[in-house]
Amino acid sequence: MRQFRKRRFIINSLLDTDFYKFTMGYLVFKLYRLIPVLYALKNRTITVPLARFISESELRRQLDHVRHLRFRSNELHFIKGTYEYDLPMFADPAYIEFLAGLTLPPYWLVRAGDSYEITVSGHWAEAIYWETFILSIVNELYYRALMKKMSAFERHLVYAEGMRRLGAKIKLLREHPGIRFSDFGTRRRFSRAWQDYVVGVLSRELGGAGGQFVGTSNVHLAMKYGLTPIGTSAHEMYMVMSGIMHGSDDDIRASHNKVLQCWWTEFGWGLSIALTDTYGTPFFFTDMTPEQARNWKGLRQDSGDPFDFGECAIAFYTGLGIDPKEKMIVFSDGLDVETIMALFERFNGRIKVTFGWGTDLTNDLGFGSLSLVVKAVEACGHGLVKLSDNLAKAIGALDDVERFKRIFGHTATFNQTCRS
Amino acid sequence: MRQFRKRRFIINSLLDTDFYKFTMGYLVFKLYRLIPVLYALKNRTITVPLARFISESELRRQLDHVRHLRFRSNELHFIKGTYEYDLPMFADPAYIEFLAGLTLPPYWLVRAGDSYEITVSGHWAEAIYWETFILSIVNELYYRALMKKMSAFERHLVYAEGMRRLGAKIKLLREHPGIRFSDFGTRRRFSRAWQDYVVGVLSRELGGAGGQFVGTSNVHLAMKYGLTPIGTSAHEMYMVMSGIMHGSDDDIRASHNKVLQCWWTEFGWGLSIALTDTYGTPFFFTDMTPEQARNWKGLRQDSGDPFDFGECAIAFYTGLGIDPKEKMIVFSDGLDVETIMALFERFNGRIKVTFGWGTDLTNDLGFGSLSLVVKAVEACGHGLVKLSDNLAKAIGALDDVERFKRIFGHTATFNQTCRS
Repeated sequence: MRQFRKRRFIINSLLDTDFYKFTMGYLVFKLYRLIPVLYALKNRTITVPLARFISESELRRQLDHVRHLRFRSNELHFIKGTYEYDLPMFADPAYIEFLAGLTLPPYWLVRAGDSYEITVSGHWAEAIYWETFILSIVNELYYRALMKKMSAFERHLVYAEGMRRLGAKIKLLREHPGIRFSDFGTRRRFSRAWQDYVVGVLSRELGGAGGQFVGTSNVHLAMKYGLTPIGTSAHEMYMVMSGIMHGSDDDIRASHNKVLQCWWTEFGWGLSIALTDTYGTPFFFTDMTPEQARNWKGLRQDSGDPFDFGECAIAFYTGLGIDPKEKMIVFSDGLDVETIMALFERFNGRIKVTFGWGTDLTNDLGFGSLSLVVKAVEACGHGLVKLSDNLAKAIGALDDVERFKRIFGHTATFNQTCRS
Repeated sequence: MRQFRKRRFIINSLLDTDFYKFTMGYLVFKLYRLIPVLYALKNRTITVPLARFISESELRRQLDHVRHLRFRSNELHFIKGTYEYDLPMFADPAYIEFLAGLTLPPYWLVRAGDSYEITVSGHWAEAIYWETFILSIVNELYYRALMKKMSAFERHLVYAEGMRRLGAKIKLLREHPGIRFSDFGTRRRFSRAWQDYVVGVLSRELGGAGGQFVGTSNVHLAMKYGLTPIGTSAHEMYMVMSGIMHGSDDDIRASHNKVLQCWWTEFGWGLSIALTDTYGTPFFFTDMTPEQARNWKGLRQDSGDPFDFGECAIAFYTGLGIDPKEKMIVFSDGLDVETIMALFERFNGRIKVTFGWGTDLTNDLGFGSLSLVVKAVEACGHGLVKLSDNLAKAIGALDDVERFKRIFGHTATFNQTCRS
């Protein structure tokens, strides 16, 4: 159990983040480098008063350490050398030079009652990297606090239970050899060491050429274990773009497709998985053009009912005369092994499916998980909005949310809309 | 899981044995040093062809290493300094000098089909130490062979399951705080490292002054964790004594009580726990004199039905006008936590009870266990016999067993005898 002992610093490499931070980061660096953006931490798990578990000084120490980190030479090689998604990628040498000189912008941390407010403001090209570091740090400090109350043996039992659960997942997955999945669990992992362990085990047990474990979103672990770094883009692309193009309702509505256009121009087919739920998937299916639908590799589902989503996606492609079997859905919303198996059973053979497995993969040791997010909340001085297919996940000021619901015709949750 | 990686040598200390080897060893050294004794390994688990799992060369290498070991100075201090069982103990300085110069006698190993025959012949005072080393080595090599077929993660799952089971035991024991027990699991442990782990956990979780975990039979671990070394005597005392006194039926019968007399003379009350089943417990209760029953601290139960044994013991003491509440039973036959709890419930308040917990404590990770024994089979050229309260555990040549059954009036298993 020695490898799980708490490490002095949680983040020890600027690659210890999600791959999509670099794909988005590259596009942002090239097109929107100086856009002012404000990010904020939100704890959706209001029942857990974080400040009673995590000391402010330790939190600051961990965050400060990230600001002292620099990309190492072999890490820059790894990014620059990405070859898995059609060539060329990260082709502009200025980006690597930019990364080599990067210092993350300052953060603002205040204790508010029993919770913490963490915000970061800065140029988009620099501030974009904070998201997962903040999340990984707050998560790990929380679990360290829980573990601290235990005896050494009780801590061993936690890891033993985590191993047992991981073993049970592997056993079930082996019984369904058609299932392919990736680790998306960096941000809400139990700890760095535990994610490292899980990814190491999966790469040996289910990895390799043709294996079921196809990669990890964590770039550091992809480098360490020789795995494909997995990821494309996040809600922040659409959200910040709405700030950049802010103006009339039509301008804001147009910002959504603008993201798809920029992304295709930069990365082409290789990274063409579109996230559908920023303003609700029904809007997405009206906004994606037939040409985009034909060109793009597929879609990522991140909120709402994934079964309904799959049926709607198949109907969407079929309605355009596109064979859904040529297209792919990446499911990534709160998966567990049962949901993965059920989705695979439902859609296998009808449309390609793969799974981005997060919290339940890297933080399943018996504790409850925290629903923490770090989201872009302002860009160019404008409040940003995410509606998603589950309004409980909505982000934004109330007025802005109402306006965006109107602009994007978001009247209810995706499930209800899709079924009507 | 690093601490469980296989060690080059299984036995790395001559203290890595049961305490009773030194209590018996001391008495033997003083009284019967030059008695020629032959020990032999017996695998009662005939379904496991050991030689298909364990290579002869590795087995030899491990056994040879034991012959190269010497007692270290701090180890001799620990033995000589034993203070827990009334003073003085190991008082004769010649014994420590003898141990300091001890080389274990040669062993004989032959492969017979798919099993191994291991025998040791030598002077009792020297050959006596082989027993547990042979058992620990054969056991650990067997489990190493099973583990070798697994992936690293599958091995982790084995340890995780072992931890889970240990945690479940600790939880149950905490719910019954009156239960006191010791580790008797050296000989059939899964591995040295696992026994070390289990004893370390128990000493932290249930140990300390007034704790439920009162000690370990393993002298090395008693020294390492500051625990009481636990143990008194084994069947070999009675068995070898029958060889020493061999002659008429009466001589052989008298050899049983001779052991009790010698033991009391040497160690007095401190170590006065009598093993009852060498020739069947019914005989024992006819052979122990009222004075011995009054003097001796208690009895050890090692075969047959422990509930019947407890009732018979209480009846035995009561019949002699002795308050059973002043006496103790050490249960040590194939215990598991459910049996321990049931025995405690049955006898707590009626007679003192404690538990010597072996295989199920140190080898409970999901594998089956081997029923291996190393027994004294000859002394002074005479075949030795153990009948026990379960004739499936009987040791000895058929003719000898029949003779001993007649001499000791052993007509059936203890259960049947006691109930009739």
